[in-house]
Amino acid sequence: MHEPVFILKGNIIYSKNITEFEVCEHGYLVCRDGKVEGVYQTLPFRLGGNPVRDFGDCLIIPGLVDLHVHAPQYSYRGLGMDMELLDWLEVNTFPEEAKFEELDYAEKAYRIFADSMRKSATTRACIFATVHRPATILLMDLMEETGLDTFVGKVNMDRNCPEYIQEETQESADETVEWIKDVLHKKYANTRPILTPRFIPSCTDDLMEELKKIQIRYSLPLQSHLSENPSEIEWVKELCPWSEFYGDAYDRFGLFGADCPTVMAHCVYSDDREIARMKENGVFIAHCPESNMNVSSGIAPVRRFLEEGMHVGIGSDVAGGSTENLFRAMAHAVQSSKLRWRLQDNTLEALKAEEVFYMATKGGGEFFGQVGSFEPGYEFDAVVLDDSRLRHPQPLDLKSRLERMIYLADERDIRAKFVKGQEVRL
Amino acid sequence: MHEPVFILKGNIIYSKNITEFEVCEHGYLVCRDGKVEGVYQTLPFRLGGNPVRDFGDCLIIPGLVDLHVHAPQYSYRGLGMDMELLDWLEVNTFPEEAKFEELDYAEKAYRIFADSMRKSATTRACIFATVHRPATILLMDLMEETGLDTFVGKVNMDRNCPEYIQEETQESADETVEWIKDVLHKKYANTRPILTPRFIPSCTDDLMEELKKIQIRYSLPLQSHLSENPSEIEWVKELCPWSEFYGDAYDRFGLFGADCPTVMAHCVYSDDREIARMKENGVFIAHCPESNMNVSSGIAPVRRFLEEGMHVGIGSDVAGGSTENLFRAMAHAVQSSKLRWRLQDNTLEALKAEEVFYMATKGGGEFFGQVGSFEPGYEFDAVVLDDSRLRHPQPLDLKSRLERMIYLADERDIRAKFVKGQEVRL
Repeated sequence: MHEPVFILKGNIIYSKNITEFEVCEHGYLVCRDGKVEGVYQTLPFRLGGNPVRDFGDCLIIPGLVDLHVHAPQYSYRGLGMDMELLDWLEVNTFPEEAKFEELDYAEKAYRIFADSMRKSATTRACIFATVHRPATILLMDLMEETGLDTFVGKVNMDRNCPEYIQEETQESADETVEWIKDVLHKKYANTRPILTPRFIPSCTDDLMEELKKIQIRYSLPLQSHLSENPSEIEWVKELCPWSEFYGDAYDRFGLFGADCPTVMAHCVYSDDREIARMKENGVFIAHCPESNMNVSSGIAPVRRFLEEGMHVGIGSDVAGGSTENLFRAMAHAVQSSKLRWRLQDNTLEALKAEEVFYMATKGGGEFFGQVGSFEPGYEFDAVVLDDSRLRHPQPLDLKSRLERMIYLADERDIRAKFVKGQEVRL
Repeated sequence: MHEPVFILKGNIIYSKNITEFEVCEHGYLVCRDGKVEGVYQTLPFRLGGNPVRDFGDCLIIPGLVDLHVHAPQYSYRGLGMDMELLDWLEVNTFPEEAKFEELDYAEKAYRIFADSMRKSATTRACIFATVHRPATILLMDLMEETGLDTFVGKVNMDRNCPEYIQEETQESADETVEWIKDVLHKKYANTRPILTPRFIPSCTDDLMEELKKIQIRYSLPLQSHLSENPSEIEWVKELCPWSEFYGDAYDRFGLFGADCPTVMAHCVYSDDREIARMKENGVFIAHCPESNMNVSSGIAPVRRFLEEGMHVGIGSDVAGGSTENLFRAMAHAVQSSKLRWRLQDNTLEALKAEEVFYMATKGGGEFFGQVGSFEPGYEFDAVVLDDSRLRHPQPLDLKSRLERMIYLADERDIRAKFVKGQEVRL
């Protein structure tokens, strides 16, 4: 649909705040110039002449936001799940990511990834590529074709990884600048570069300084990993003895949200000081519950983050996570929060459906601007869900139908998807 | 297929023991009179004249065994996931189960359950119904139609539940006998009764004595719940001050595996004495990892059970679990074992794909006899999986393809299913 104004009719559910769903049964969701004009129980008379798509008894929710996903790892989702983080990187990740030097392989792999993202309920994502500039540009071309709105990062790594995938410091900086120039030149509508130092163990101080210069020059956001696993955290202490805590090792270079939007994945072991610094700097947290289980990391104190009023979204973290399906990630977030309450700290209550839904929409959406809600002025990202596959004998209210989808929905249940008012071809 | 001998061709994977997969690439799985005759890389000359169904590059695995599932709870799978066990029973379970007094409602609900079980990779199940005799028989009729091989139990409850669903002690015993007579009279091929006292808090000592008499008279197996949640365990101590531990409260009545096969769901908090008694009595454990997360119970020490050589299978425990999909249950078992290792007890190593697959096939299958493997003489339960939906750019060996399915497979991927040599209509 390219009409400046169009209307979706259905059961509209979204979050304004973290504690409750906003519900409009058989209501009208109005898009004007790519933004939400409003949600109406009765269509205002003045809008009467505009096209209405009636989705009957379907649910209409904001598009989901994946704050952390590794595109090249999609090929081995669900595989090699018997290692902790650092071994897992060595055995699974680096050998697979090395293959993306070959553009033919990259195209085959990235096309599968892009197709799956297109068919999912995800409308926005922060994506890691590999160190390879040409393959990263190819991925951005493919993501642009999907119609999703994404940040994509060429990864930087100049230490502590196998030679076959390690960059020289200056090479890493130069390639990053070249990559940025290339993709700015392409004038994508929906695809933007994001600085992507893999994590502190992979990046020398010199490289971090170079990246800061690049960030200032191009005003780019940044994504990385933080406090995921105890061995990793110990390693960062050794590598950066001058750092007060893991996050401080980014902050010393000005790469921890002070100047530009920054999203850090995991934060399983963030201590008081790290949490305070993240708050101060407005760092976004990408909570990746399935990955934190699969790589035996632990469970992030998400309730604490929410109580502190921090920015928290959800990440699939494929292939630490096995699936791009963010409904599953929401369920994992609730489930692991319950185990954390039971086994680790019963002062932090388990997460509720309303809270994980907020995180997967408006919470993560804020990284992209006014995204993830149907409040007026928000960008028009919407997913139409047909839950009739999940049969039930009793009547269910709309909130229950949405809660059920968190546990059970997959791409089969998506009838339509819109990003910034443009329909995505499913 | 009703031929006495037929052959499936494909990539055959199954477990003989718990540590490794048996693999036969592009091999032949031979069924004779409902049992496995053998797995062959090359078809023996003497079998040459028999029909072969070639499933190309599909995987062929033993049917999955669900050792614990509540049929009436299927209607609210994925709902009301914000309570611990005892509140959850009060708020969600009992009101829904009460509806099964109405046969019309029961038929609507149980038909949905039976259809889903039929389409899943499950070939065997131990199923809880409700207290209602007519609805339980209806469920058994429907399960018989599916072609799956199941134990189904009319639930017994004569205390500590709302009046609208509570039985009188003698009534409960009498109805159980009537139910057994009714269903034995029906001469089902694949559907058998199993004694089902809900759990100790729901059953008076008098009722347990009656059930023991019934068990002796009809030689019936038994299913129930054990040591799921700390509050429940405390309650059992109060209710049965004479018991040494929770399991002992069953054993005092002879209802803990000493005479008849017995399966106990959960065993999250089984202590040394309980574990020793279960071993002694050969009690089967139905490990229900998703339910143990969703109802905030905790994580069962499955590694310990395996080291002790106990009988351990997997249960979906719908609706504590949200899905009948046992692939998902296997993934949850691996995932929660990792969190247990990280947060609770690092002396118990996390579970591996081989181990959870064993549990979901041969481990639970033993409750049904020689079931859950493709070793000669085993009953011919097989599932043909087409994993081509899950695209990948690199070559994958068969074990990797199976590991991937544990995380990602659902009913879409099932091409064919056989129970005791009979094909199930999907």
